[in-house]
Amino acid sequence: MPYVNIRIAGSLSREQKKQIAQEITDTLERIAHKPKSYTYIAFDEMPHENWAIAGTLLGEED
Amino acid sequence: MPYVNIRIAGSLSREQKKQIAQEITDTLERIAHKPKSYTYIAFDEMPHENWAIAGTLLGEED
Amino acid sequence: MPYVNIRIAGSLSREQKKQIAQEITDTLERIAHKPKSYTYIAFDEMPHENWAIAGTLLGEED
Amino acid sequence: MPYVNIRIAGSLSREQKKQIAQEITDTLERIAHKPKSYTYIAFDEMPHENWAIAGTLLGEED
Amino acid sequence: MPYVNIRIAGSLSREQKKQIAQEITDTLERIAHKPKSYTYIAFDEMPHENWAIAGTLLGEED
Amino acid sequence: MPYVNIRIAGSLSREQKKQIAQEITDTLERIAHKPKSYTYIAFDEMPHENWAIAGTLLGEED
Repeated sequence: MPYVNIRIAGSLSREQKKQIAQEITDTLERIAHKPKSYTYIAFDEMPHENWAIAGTLLGEED
Repeated sequence: MPYVNIRIAGSLSREQKKQIAQEITDTLERIAHKPKSYTYIAFDEMPHENWAIAGTLLGEED
Repeated sequence: MPYVNIRIAGSLSREQKKQIAQEITDTLERIAHKPKSYTYIAFDEMPHENWAIAGTLLGEED
Repeated sequence: MPYVNIRIAGSLSREQKKQIAQEITDTLERIAHKPKSYTYIAFDEMPHENWAIAGTLLGEED
Repeated sequence: MPYVNIRIAGSLSREQKKQIAQEITDTLERIAHKPKSYTYIAFDEMPHENWAIAGTLLGEED
Repeated sequence: MPYVNIRIAGSLSREQKKQIAQEITDTLERIAHKPKSYTYIAFDEMPHENWAIAGTLLGEED
């Protein structure tokens, strides 16, 4: 541990995932004192229609 | 919050996801007094063979 | 399955959890045709300070 | 319950998932006394680039 | 990875968690060829009233 | 969305959680272009004995 799960609607580029993973791993080392090698990060890129806010699927309002 | 994650084997139509999201968001507003705009719902539609009950993958018995 | 995970900040009464579980299980039977006996629902009641929206812990603004 | 979620990078064959599901369900019955019929297992097979260890996406070092 | 999350109602003894962790880690090494050092296992021990099956909270029927 | 779940063994101070939430929310805005108001972060602080690495509960080796 730590285990971090990031769930978003839509997709991220490999470069975006790379940068996000670096920054979050750094944040957890600097603030929570967790060695970098311990941090696992898992990204879930989900279809927009599989995500609802306020009872409305994303994109539904269009 | 609330954050609601619904995991099923197989898939749902867009219309099913829309109705489920509406009803659950309504349930959480009516019973738990959570404003609708706060509720996030994420659907995970999973392959049948990625789900096991009683040690048996779904569909395996066929 | 289905497996439903409901995560909220703060707590719910037993009666609230009972009603929410009944309604969501009913919704999934009626709309997604999942037999009631298959639906598992797990509630996570979390401390307010363990939840952040927009980068701010709940209650922090007070 | 129990509900078990297994998340891996890459994929497993149907046979591997079948064996893993059998063994874990057996483990939970034998050690935790949970009836086999109660145990749900859900596998998430994720793209390598959606998983980071030590701030590095899997496969990135290649 | 792998990351394994085990969610149960009620609690397990330290010895039970120890044995379950050993067996699952061994299963994933033997069948999925995942090095033991990569496997993270997280146990969530939940109050019975936070778990519903078939729309009924555990213990509710009593 | 995004929804971010951070699971650690042990606890964090309120100040640590506040700083981590700020930084991750900022990272997701800057790199993934997600408006800050959309980002939910949920922290799970777990007992050491509920976490295993390499088949060994944390603290067990002591």
